[in-house]
Amino acid sequence: MEKFLQEAKSASRVLSLLSGAKKNRVLKEMANALRVNKADLIDANALDMADGKKNSLSLALMDRLLLDEVRIEAMAVAIEEIAALKEPVGRVLDGWVTEAGLKIEKVSIPIGVIGIIYESRPNVTSDTAALCFKSSNVCVLKGGKEAQNSNEAIAKVLQATLEKNSLPKSLISLVPDSSREGVAKLIKMDKYVDLIIPRGGEGLIKYVCDNATVSVVKHDKGQCHTYIDKEAILEDAIKIAINAKTQRPGVCNAMETLLVDSAIAKSALPLIKAEFDKANTKLKGCLKTQEIIDVESVTEEDYDTEYLDNILNMRVVDGVEEAIEHIVRFGSGHSEAIVTQNVTTAEKFLNSIDAAAVYLNASTRFTDGGSFGFGAEVGISTNKLHARGPMGIEGLTTYKYKIYGSGQTR
Amino acid sequence: MEKFLQEAKSASRVLSLLSGAKKNRVLKEMANALRVNKADLIDANALDMADGKKNSLSLALMDRLLLDEVRIEAMAVAIEEIAALKEPVGRVLDGWVTEAGLKIEKVSIPIGVIGIIYESRPNVTSDTAALCFKSSNVCVLKGGKEAQNSNEAIAKVLQATLEKNSLPKSLISLVPDSSREGVAKLIKMDKYVDLIIPRGGEGLIKYVCDNATVSVVKHDKGQCHTYIDKEAILEDAIKIAINAKTQRPGVCNAMETLLVDSAIAKSALPLIKAEFDKANTKLKGCLKTQEIIDVESVTEEDYDTEYLDNILNMRVVDGVEEAIEHIVRFGSGHSEAIVTQNVTTAEKFLNSIDAAAVYLNASTRFTDGGSFGFGAEVGISTNKLHARGPMGIEGLTTYKYKIYGSGQTR
Repeated sequence: MEKFLQEAKSASRVLSLLSGAKKNRVLKEMANALRVNKADLIDANALDMADGKKNSLSLALMDRLLLDEVRIEAMAVAIEEIAALKEPVGRVLDGWVTEAGLKIEKVSIPIGVIGIIYESRPNVTSDTAALCFKSSNVCVLKGGKEAQNSNEAIAKVLQATLEKNSLPKSLISLVPDSSREGVAKLIKMDKYVDLIIPRGGEGLIKYVCDNATVSVVKHDKGQCHTYIDKEAILEDAIKIAINAKTQRPGVCNAMETLLVDSAIAKSALPLIKAEFDKANTKLKGCLKTQEIIDVESVTEEDYDTEYLDNILNMRVVDGVEEAIEHIVRFGSGHSEAIVTQNVTTAEKFLNSIDAAAVYLNASTRFTDGGSFGFGAEVGISTNKLHARGPMGIEGLTTYKYKIYGSGQTR
Repeated sequence: MEKFLQEAKSASRVLSLLSGAKKNRVLKEMANALRVNKADLIDANALDMADGKKNSLSLALMDRLLLDEVRIEAMAVAIEEIAALKEPVGRVLDGWVTEAGLKIEKVSIPIGVIGIIYESRPNVTSDTAALCFKSSNVCVLKGGKEAQNSNEAIAKVLQATLEKNSLPKSLISLVPDSSREGVAKLIKMDKYVDLIIPRGGEGLIKYVCDNATVSVVKHDKGQCHTYIDKEAILEDAIKIAINAKTQRPGVCNAMETLLVDSAIAKSALPLIKAEFDKANTKLKGCLKTQEIIDVESVTEEDYDTEYLDNILNMRVVDGVEEAIEHIVRFGSGHSEAIVTQNVTTAEKFLNSIDAAAVYLNASTRFTDGGSFGFGAEVGISTNKLHARGPMGIEGLTTYKYKIYGSGQTR
């Protein structure tokens, strides 16, 4: 592992000399290479699908694992879209002249070597490889073992394109040891690896955060809330709540708990329930909720659970203060929304809640790079530092100061 | 420790509601309280000085430890200067409207609870406490045990000012257990602590980086180089080299190794040596250097040593390429300088070297918040992410997205 990462580190220097034009040409060739080699990719994927069946993977997981012509085309298009992004390296982020007459430029640069740990979907392999290459970073990929054959086939195609362009294939590679021990080693190699991005289950992320000596930007769970204030337009509020829960329940920006102001609970809850019933959402509620509508009872543990499913906790709260208290206690700092027409209430909520994204009168489902207009996204960070929330390709850069003098000394 | 940090965490919410005017008023009161209580501070410091003498601390350490009227006045002025800084929280860093019509504002916010681990100088206690308070962060301070009495006296004065203003004293506190075990606990409390900033010796920093589960922004060593190219104005080059080494050898942005282009070594080295001899610098050189001037021989280990003293390694290299190779191998990513008149050579150096600050024709000694014009500095970060190089008060903030909708759903 150490020798492998050493190579990755030294390969990173090649990237600092590549022009944007060359990088984009190589990316377009990678996209085409995926198209040309689609039969090989589908064959490799078939092995994973067969293993998955043997290991009784769930239908949802099998679907995420599958590669077909349509998905391979989508992967190719995604790489072309990444090629079309504005060059992320060398942007002048700030600049000024100091008292001593030094001209300082704060310039974006690549991070270096980035280790990415993820699960099931094979398209993540090509997406992340392309994002890292575009931002002049070396990537070291550790996909899920259930997709090992597919990931290897994809990496082989991308590496062949690198070599055809006289670039070291170690710019994009899968970790040689994809066992638990391999991960354990990878996350301690701060000498060679500059950043680890874990995307996956809570267990994986906790393990990485607890044990890494490399810096980590995690993509953790979203325990998201929507609070309907007494001064909300109820029709909007219900639309927003339904959207936040049901449009795609399996993602991190979906709502898990709906908080309703006690001042309107009596009239609002039956209307809310009627709409959720249409969407077949399973509702759980606090005692006050149960006094008004017929729902199962909710537990403290439920308030702390990311269902990733069409299940919703409901709680009646006494105004925005109690809503904030609930979110401070149970929120995961991802996305939180208030629905109200009152500006003071709105700003109190938006300013008090410490989350990556805080919404007024909109669905939490908008927290992603696409909706934010970032073009392509690395993921949705739940870190508090470096990159927070939707992480565009600039999240794969850091900066240095270039300082131009004319003989200055102190 | 856990209960103590729990209090710190919950106190952090108080800060989100404080106005800038109130914060600045409290800071000015803190400055005056230091002045009013200077006798107590000097008494407490006398205990540390007596212990220091008993434990045979070096003269340099004893000097760093000392508090007198002049230094207490300087601490008070530093707090007043921090009060005068522009409000760091609530800055709109970016803003746009999305396709869906959502108005997104990226806004600076406090990080939360910041643990700072540092050594000897008691003024760090008041400086960091003021910087954290100004940026609406709670600070948990762990100073050196040799300054324990002084730090406690300073913290007591600052806390009294907080309480006089009806603010919880847990906004500024010293860790209750300042032993090694206390530090071990502190750096694993990611539930309550959002950032650890270690400032101190290599051993401490390595220990914190290896064991923390909390995010770390480290202030590590500076292994800084200056490369004199064949196209340098030699007079400037010598001035810059002398300044980088001798103006204050004990700091992290001082030069440790001077690289000289072989094309000019024969004529330049004697001139360089003559100036360093005047400054009583002890010179060590590579074989090629020794063929030209009479210096001790340098070892590989020397190239890797931060002397913090008036000692300099010298090496003759074949042009900018070999200079870059040397720096890639031995540099610590802090500050690196080239002296040349050739733009192509200059840009090759500035772009190839991965360091927080890269200089053309200026001394590496400029890498600090003051010289950069940041007003006050938290320190000089050797992190690659979050804050790199001189870390102004914005380094104590992160951001969130405030999103204003009008009923949008996906």
